[in-house]
Amino acid sequence: MKTSARNQFRGKVEQVLIGAVNAEIYLSLQGGASLVASITKDSVATLGIEVGVEVTALVKAPQIIVVTEFGGYKISARNQLAGTVVAVKSGAVNSEIDIELKGGEIVAATVTNDSVETLGLRAGKPATAIFKAGAVILAVKN
Amino acid sequence: MKTSARNQFRGKVEQVLIGAVNAEIYLSLQGGASLVASITKDSVATLGIEVGVEVTALVKAPQIIVVTEFGGYKISARNQLAGTVVAVKSGAVNSEIDIELKGGEIVAATVTNDSVETLGLRAGKPATAIFKAGAVILAVKN
Amino acid sequence: MKTSARNQFRGKVEQVLIGAVNAEIYLSLQGGASLVASITKDSVATLGIEVGVEVTALVKAPQIIVVTEFGGYKISARNQLAGTVVAVKSGAVNSEIDIELKGGEIVAATVTNDSVETLGLRAGKPATAIFKAGAVILAVKN
Repeated sequence: MKTSARNQFRGKVEQVLIGAVNAEIYLSLQGGASLVASITKDSVATLGIEVGVEVTALVKAPQIIVVTEFGGYKISARNQLAGTVVAVKSGAVNSEIDIELKGGEIVAATVTNDSVETLGLRAGKPATAIFKAGAVILAVKN
Repeated sequence: MKTSARNQFRGKVEQVLIGAVNAEIYLSLQGGASLVASITKDSVATLGIEVGVEVTALVKAPQIIVVTEFGGYKISARNQLAGTVVAVKSGAVNSEIDIELKGGEIVAATVTNDSVETLGLRAGKPATAIFKAGAVILAVKN
Repeated sequence: MKTSARNQFRGKVEQVLIGAVNAEIYLSLQGGASLVASITKDSVATLGIEVGVEVTALVKAPQIIVVTEFGGYKISARNQLAGTVVAVKSGAVNSEIDIELKGGEIVAATVTNDSVETLGLRAGKPATAIFKAGAVILAVKN
C-alpha cells in the first residue's frame, strides 16, 4: 500500500466497541503505544475488523497537534502519544515535526513555524502528539 | 458562494440515513462519482436536505489522502475517488495534487513533497483521493 | 498549556448534550461568540465537563474554511464565526489568514494562495471562519 499519509502505524486490534452508527477500534501499536480510531460500523464489517486482526492506522500530519506542556490541563482528544522530537523540517510557513515514541514509532505533525518557535520545538524536546479518534483511517490487508 | 475550500463538488442527494445525533448523506456528483457526508441531524433539518436536493460538498485539500497502490489493502474511509493526476503544484514543503475523476471533476489534495516523491506523483499517474465522511461539509442554496 | 494549535479559545460550557457515544458541548467564548465541540461521552466524564466549567477549545488552522460570500447558501458546519480579516501571512503555497471576531478573538485559518486571490482576502475584508464540531478539541484545567 502506498499512500500520502505521513503516519502509517502497524498495530493489532485489541477491542471493538460498536455504537449505533460508528465503532471505536482500540489498537496496540508494534512499539507498545495505543491508538483509538472512530470508523463506521459498516467499515468494521467490510474490512473484517475484529480482535486480533492486524491493521494499519493512517493519520495525516496536519491533523496532529503538538503539546509540549500541559500545565495541569486535560485534553479531550483520545490519542495522546508522548515522545521526543527527533527532527524539525521547516518550510516557508509550516514545519514537519517528527516525534519518536518510546517504542520507536515516529509520529509526523505539521505545525506552523510560529509554533516551532513558541513551543521551542527542536531535537531532544519532549512532546506529545494529539489527535482525535475521528482523524484515524484504518486499512486491512485481505 | 465563495469559500477557501479547494474542493467544491456539485451533486444531488441520493439517500439520507438518520442516526441518533448524526446523519449520513449520500450524493451523486455531476460527473457520476458518489460521495458520503456525515453531518448532524440538526443540519439536515436546517438545510432542508432530502432526496433530490442539490447540494455542494466542501472538502479541504489537507483532509485528503492520496493512494497510488492498495497492495491488497481495504481502507475504512468512506470516500474513495479514483482518477488520474493532472497537476502537481509544489511549494517548499507541501504540494497540491490535482486528480481528475472519470466524470471530469478535479479533486485537490495537499500532500508533503516527500510523498510526491515516494508515490511518484506526476501528471498521468493513476491515484485515488481518500477522505472520511466526517471531512465533508454540505452547502445548500435556499 | 503550550500547544501547536493556532486557535485556542477560552470559553465557558453553556450546554452539554449527551448522545450514545458522543456529546456536543456548547461554549460561549470570552468575546461573546459561540462554539460547539463534538467529543466522546468518555471525555466529558474524564475532563469533568459540565455547565459553567471553563474550557479551552483547540482548533488547527488547516481545519478551517474561510467564506467571504454565502450567495444564498446555508452551510452544514456547526461553527461559523463571522469577522474581519486582519492579517494575511503568505508562504510559497499556503497563507495563514487571521480573522478578528466582534468580541476581539482572532481565528487563524490556513488556505491556499489561490484562495487568497480568488476570495480577495486582505486586511479589512469581512470573512467567516467555518469548521465542524468534530474539529474541536477541548482542554480543561484540573
